[in-house]
Amino acid sequence: MTKLKTSYHDLVIVGAGPAGLMAASWASRLQLNTRVLDDKADRVSNGRADGLHVRTLEILDSFGLATPIQEAAYQLREICCWNPDSDDENEIRRTERVLSKEEDLGRYCQMGIHQGFIEQSFLDFLENKNHVQVERIVKTQSLDFDKASATDGNAHPITLRIRHQPSVSKGSKLDGDDELDPLDEIIQTKYLLGTDGGHSWVRKQLNLKMNGDRTKKHFGVIDIIPISDFPDVRISCSIHSTKHGSIMTIPREGRLVRFYVQLAETGGDQDDFDTSKITPETIAEKASKILSPYKLSFSHCDWWSIYTVGQQYASKFDVGNRIFLAGDAVHTHSPTMGAGMNVSMQDTYNLVWKLGQVIKGIAQPHILDTYNSERQAVATQLIELDRKMSNFYSDAPGAEALEYDKFREQFTRFLSGVSVQYGPNVLVPATDQSKHHSKPSLASNIIVGQRLPSHLVMNHAEANIVHAHSLLPSDGRWRVLILAGDISKPSQMSRLQGLCSYLTSPASFVHTYTPASSRIDSVIEILTVHAAPRHEVELLDLPEILHLFDSKLGYDYWKVFSNNNNSEEGDFDDAYELWGVGKDQGCIAVVRPDQHVSYLCELEDVELLERYFDQILVPQKKEN
Amino acid sequence: MTKLKTSYHDLVIVGAGPAGLMAASWASRLQLNTRVLDDKADRVSNGRADGLHVRTLEILDSFGLATPIQEAAYQLREICCWNPDSDDENEIRRTERVLSKEEDLGRYCQMGIHQGFIEQSFLDFLENKNHVQVERIVKTQSLDFDKASATDGNAHPITLRIRHQPSVSKGSKLDGDDELDPLDEIIQTKYLLGTDGGHSWVRKQLNLKMNGDRTKKHFGVIDIIPISDFPDVRISCSIHSTKHGSIMTIPREGRLVRFYVQLAETGGDQDDFDTSKITPETIAEKASKILSPYKLSFSHCDWWSIYTVGQQYASKFDVGNRIFLAGDAVHTHSPTMGAGMNVSMQDTYNLVWKLGQVIKGIAQPHILDTYNSERQAVATQLIELDRKMSNFYSDAPGAEALEYDKFREQFTRFLSGVSVQYGPNVLVPATDQSKHHSKPSLASNIIVGQRLPSHLVMNHAEANIVHAHSLLPSDGRWRVLILAGDISKPSQMSRLQGLCSYLTSPASFVHTYTPASSRIDSVIEILTVHAAPRHEVELLDLPEILHLFDSKLGYDYWKVFSNNNNSEEGDFDDAYELWGVGKDQGCIAVVRPDQHVSYLCELEDVELLERYFDQILVPQKKEN
Repeated sequence: MTKLKTSYHDLVIVGAGPAGLMAASWASRLQLNTRVLDDKADRVSNGRADGLHVRTLEILDSFGLATPIQEAAYQLREICCWNPDSDDENEIRRTERVLSKEEDLGRYCQMGIHQGFIEQSFLDFLENKNHVQVERIVKTQSLDFDKASATDGNAHPITLRIRHQPSVSKGSKLDGDDELDPLDEIIQTKYLLGTDGGHSWVRKQLNLKMNGDRTKKHFGVIDIIPISDFPDVRISCSIHSTKHGSIMTIPREGRLVRFYVQLAETGGDQDDFDTSKITPETIAEKASKILSPYKLSFSHCDWWSIYTVGQQYASKFDVGNRIFLAGDAVHTHSPTMGAGMNVSMQDTYNLVWKLGQVIKGIAQPHILDTYNSERQAVATQLIELDRKMSNFYSDAPGAEALEYDKFREQFTRFLSGVSVQYGPNVLVPATDQSKHHSKPSLASNIIVGQRLPSHLVMNHAEANIVHAHSLLPSDGRWRVLILAGDISKPSQMSRLQGLCSYLTSPASFVHTYTPASSRIDSVIEILTVHAAPRHEVELLDLPEILHLFDSKLGYDYWKVFSNNNNSEEGDFDDAYELWGVGKDQGCIAVVRPDQHVSYLCELEDVELLERYFDQILVPQKKEN
Repeated sequence: MTKLKTSYHDLVIVGAGPAGLMAASWASRLQLNTRVLDDKADRVSNGRADGLHVRTLEILDSFGLATPIQEAAYQLREICCWNPDSDDENEIRRTERVLSKEEDLGRYCQMGIHQGFIEQSFLDFLENKNHVQVERIVKTQSLDFDKASATDGNAHPITLRIRHQPSVSKGSKLDGDDELDPLDEIIQTKYLLGTDGGHSWVRKQLNLKMNGDRTKKHFGVIDIIPISDFPDVRISCSIHSTKHGSIMTIPREGRLVRFYVQLAETGGDQDDFDTSKITPETIAEKASKILSPYKLSFSHCDWWSIYTVGQQYASKFDVGNRIFLAGDAVHTHSPTMGAGMNVSMQDTYNLVWKLGQVIKGIAQPHILDTYNSERQAVATQLIELDRKMSNFYSDAPGAEALEYDKFREQFTRFLSGVSVQYGPNVLVPATDQSKHHSKPSLASNIIVGQRLPSHLVMNHAEANIVHAHSLLPSDGRWRVLILAGDISKPSQMSRLQGLCSYLTSPASFVHTYTPASSRIDSVIEILTVHAAPRHEVELLDLPEILHLFDSKLGYDYWKVFSNNNNSEEGDFDDAYELWGVGKDQGCIAVVRPDQHVSYLCELEDVELLERYFDQILVPQKKEN
């Protein structure tokens, strides 16, 4: 054993699906010493997951990945419901058309595109921008976790033995001592992330059990280029027939459409359900019956599968804050809501910035507790919703079908991901009225614990109109977002100046938590959106801490933005109004590296901010 | 000579700058047998041209290239004017701020990004999507044009002798017969395009002279990361001082800003102007004087140059409709308007689809006449404008400075490229009231000869909201755009059905000009935008010629779009209203492969359309 190659890493990611690749993207942005291992030879080529929800697109955009996906994907702007015709219950008719109101949820709408496209976007990002390559056909062989040493932050308490793909030279034989097999390797790592799917090897090594069970409802899935006279073939539909069950459709990139077709429910009369007889053709035939009087056939089938509805989740998502599980490895549910891939990516998006800050000594290790509490709550909600949803799908139509529409509308916000709310916990203190807590009344539509809603603001120096989220790329920094109000009024400007004198002082939290050798905005970045008429304020008249000077690069013109008061600067909305922030009041929003708002207070509340960061960050030694 | 390697091509492009690469992109999209030769070792790495106007971005988007450029570029949303302070004429003050009203011009605003970025976008497009590589360090040695054989469409009347880059193996010596030098090559080509810049080798071989001359006004250009307290350093400014001349600035991608700084005017007292003493530092010093009381310095200079204002253009842009010149090879002017690169790319965008159609036998060769007439008219206008503009820049400030702002406003449309109007000529018949001409009154804001303005429309089958230009990618096809009006009214539906019976009949122009072996939409594509309430019309109830059926792919759902009547379908404008088309009237717009509208008529005017295409296209033989 001692002769085996051994390497040391901060983080090892096992499983390079969407959740693992999201984690790898974070890790590479944060420049963590990371390995990404996958037992398969290549990424997913077609089929599998295919829905992207609003929040996922916002997250992808924070890595610069949303635009090409958006250009290639199907944009889900309308949903149609079809139910049995009241005149002839053997035929279906359209009972409802709903245009999705994406503007309520954010700047993206729901999209349909196959998982492989998203994986490829991550792979390109990793390779082109960060020179990280996923290691393929790597078999994990054993996992040891030395709990005793885990209390030491610098220890590598996790030992992983892996085996690489044998050389492709055919017929060559590996001779000699097995212990010296050059294809085997020992990896010592500080942290381990298992994103290795529903049959997770990592989870099995940890003996974590899944709660919940499978139902006896069986669905077929086909990705086809439909040949059909069904009028809404390019619209996402929920279709209920009287006798033959239900279908849900999601149009996709190119000419593809995905059909989820109810096949059978076993347990009663139909215990003889035999999956071996199912083919894409039989699924389409079943769909054609449900669609009557319309016909469905196909010449090209891109992918197909059969699944049995089930809801399962792991009792915990981590072991000792050193080994973490995410995605299908800890929660599985039916695919009809298109939630699985989204929630899986959101799991690791929640986790890896925390790991990065702890590994770098910026944040205190106990912030890692929040991964389990924040993400298990989401998984539990999702599984609860999925149980209800599956019943709606497979139950007979009628009153329930109509109820389903309302049901769907009600849960759109949750599914979109934008209403996911974390806390209260150490990162997101409670918002009640006690002394040290956030003051939610300062911004009626910025919900502490939720992601900051993105509205358009204008770069003060450039007059360029940008989304607030573009100020919050995923680079690992905390942001203190100063909504300074109308600083053309002397009283408000004076409040801002007071705040800035504190921020500029060596005792301020910005200085306390920033290493002496780093730029002052490298841990906590200060951003300003004011609500003065833009032409009444000159950028360089504002305190320099808001537009840092660099002797080689000049001023930083990309930290101060102006609000479009009453839409006077052009055809875009008044962000202060949308955020519910008073222009004569203003506020400070602390935004976590994952765009979630963790604290809200007034411009004078620097002591509250000090107390907030004191619970989370690690004071940095200064050079003497 | 006979032993030299000889190859045969449809088109040879000499010069791989923006104009040449635009031509190459067209040629590769049209799958022409093309060579692209350049004498330099690589693309431009920094500096040079840096402005993109609205129409150029529309064109780049028609090749799928606009989005990444837009994301990287500086967006020019505001212009500021600075003039001598009325209280202290030694200091400047801001006299005007103008927000650019891009919505009047199209969906893009003017942008600043260096030429190399655009060239790289083309190179990636050519290599990744079309497997075309620019041949570098190729020296053109001789050019012969056999006019006699040029009357034969299949002839290769142009002979080009070129010499490739010697092998990089150092010290190797090429021995033996020069005639057999393997680095030399003979190229026989049907067409030749010279996009080889102001010192065009192709132009010199043709003995074409340039008209016009250089002035004695000398400017310095620097691309720097400015260190400055000038308030509008990230805004495009025109700045006039009392004593030291003027500056124009264009902020750029990253932190760069370009400064055009007036240095001297020779001919009078300053005949001693010595360019050898100019450095980036002296240019910045001069700028600092003009900017007083503000200071300007820099630590990083990305690129710099000196130029003398001049306006020159070639008397003709082609020889015998076989050899064409474009870009700087036929027109040069001062760079301050950022027009050069734009007009150059627009030259070849105008030309190559015509070449492609003639080479493929789709269009009649005489359409090539229109290249010279259409593009020389633009060059002449531009040079006229540039003469006036240069005077404004270098003249003393005051009344003229104010006049300049108006002047600039007035010419914004021309510079943006969206008001460029072609014809009357064979491709764009006159629009007066005589019998066979266009009927401009049918669409008050669709100007025959100009590019179709792009407004948002909704895909009928998908409810997806798309720009009309996204229906008109640069793929070489003509479009018959049927603005069908409100077809929920039986009378209007009946008019559409009448038109479609004609289009479906074997005698229709669509069939006449399409080769028997090709898809019926491969030469002329029929697109529909109707103005019925979308939910009152089912796509499959429309005639099939509007949504073609394919036995393997099903219906084509991407050819019929609906108008957003009174913005009832969401937050986007009513395109019929913007186009000025009556919903109870409708019209047909013939759109050239370069998005220019060439003909407007009523839904019944099939005879006029037949007559129109008869002048341009070649009837295809049908299989018997």
